[in-house]
Amino acid sequence: MKRVMLTVAYDGTAYSGYQMQENAPTIEGELNRCLKDLLKEDIRVIGGSRTDAGVHALCNVAVFDTCARMPGEKMSYAMNQRLPEDIRIRKAQEVAQGFHPRRCDSRKTYLYRIVNSAFPIPTKRLYSHFTYVPLDAGRMQEAAAFFVGEHDFKSFCSAGSQVESTVRRIHSLEVTREGEEITICVAGNGFLYHMVRIIAGTLMEVGRGVREPAHMAEILEAKDRRAAGPTAPACGLCLADYKFLS
Amino acid sequence: MKRVMLTVAYDGTAYSGYQMQENAPTIEGELNRCLKDLLKEDIRVIGGSRTDAGVHALCNVAVFDTCARMPGEKMSYAMNQRLPEDIRIRKAQEVAQGFHPRRCDSRKTYLYRIVNSAFPIPTKRLYSHFTYVPLDAGRMQEAAAFFVGEHDFKSFCSAGSQVESTVRRIHSLEVTREGEEITICVAGNGFLYHMVRIIAGTLMEVGRGVREPAHMAEILEAKDRRAAGPTAPACGLCLADYKFLS
Repeated sequence: MKRVMLTVAYDGTAYSGYQMQENAPTIEGELNRCLKDLLKEDIRVIGGSRTDAGVHALCNVAVFDTCARMPGEKMSYAMNQRLPEDIRIRKAQEVAQGFHPRRCDSRKTYLYRIVNSAFPIPTKRLYSHFTYVPLDAGRMQEAAAFFVGEHDFKSFCSAGSQVESTVRRIHSLEVTREGEEITICVAGNGFLYHMVRIIAGTLMEVGRGVREPAHMAEILEAKDRRAAGPTAPACGLCLADYKFLS
Repeated sequence: MKRVMLTVAYDGTAYSGYQMQENAPTIEGELNRCLKDLLKEDIRVIGGSRTDAGVHALCNVAVFDTCARMPGEKMSYAMNQRLPEDIRIRKAQEVAQGFHPRRCDSRKTYLYRIVNSAFPIPTKRLYSHFTYVPLDAGRMQEAAAFFVGEHDFKSFCSAGSQVESTVRRIHSLEVTREGEEITICVAGNGFLYHMVRIIAGTLMEVGRGVREPAHMAEILEAKDRRAAGPTAPACGLCLADYKFLS
């Protein structure tokens, strides 16, 4: 018996999210189906980040146990021949038996992409959120600074999550504009349900001038979802990096 | 009667190219259908660059004549409400009656994008060509320099084109790598049938070491399509800029 960790990239457009659901296409469902086909074992992968419907990833992770003789390192090639083209295994490696991705210290980096121009760009429409309302990326960056560090992010967590603590640490949060595109890049040790999308939705309100950057401190203080801005659409979000620290 | 010029962006994935065809979805077909619906006139647009099936554009152009009272400048909004989401009018403007996009001096810029990593990136698969064979962008840039200037590009033109002259001027041709992505950016006064894709296919052969950069001079000299490399796949190509000089 060995434990294998997969590094998985996907285009989330066609999926009802990462986590397994009956009667809906999911990333986990595709991985389980593929591994059963390849290894002839009934495998249920353990997911890393359980991304929402429509969210993309460059490097999510999944682990599973197998008795197969095939070396873990060879599995990426074999899996990619069996997966749909919107899911790709970038790496497969054997890890310690007790390794569990959600019980490890980790650092995740998410990108939230916004196209901010008079009209949408068709080739970007599946991987960014479009708004024609002019956004001031400088103001957004000013507001972003309030989130860096350890805070209770209860105001930035949608109902339906069952976590014990809503305290998280954000290592960095940068807002940059390049032409018509604004990118929010946030790295942290963990994120609550919808947290990045609510931060993005709130920063966009700052960017168009309906909230002040300094107001972010009050929103954090409120510990109330209603104090923050709307949840930004899923298609703009991409899990871009995922590192285990221990 | 007035002549209106549209600046059109599209995701070419679902289309059999720019130019009107019976029984196949085309960009021109969608524009004609949309204008008929909007203006109640039988309009046939005149296209700028007739991109191939699967090729994308940020700013192709199309012109048409209309007796409609609606100011040209207002048409982009009205058209975008009627077009599928993979086609967007970025600008509509009235132009001189005699203006014909293919009979004007112009400068077009194309991007050819390559993902060069061990495995494809799902979120880039529709807008880039993937190859796992390592490419040396420095060698590709060295080869690219041979194309700059005025040359007979007959070796870089597919059969089926009916142009009088195969001489074209390339203003610039730059190959850059950023991580796993290589971009070929080429600007010129006009391009022959498949010319950018054959240049890209030839540069990739240089990048993987099967041709020498200096060999480009011989290929140009040969004036024979068989001397050049293969035509690179359509999905990597995007018409990125289109300017009229006169």
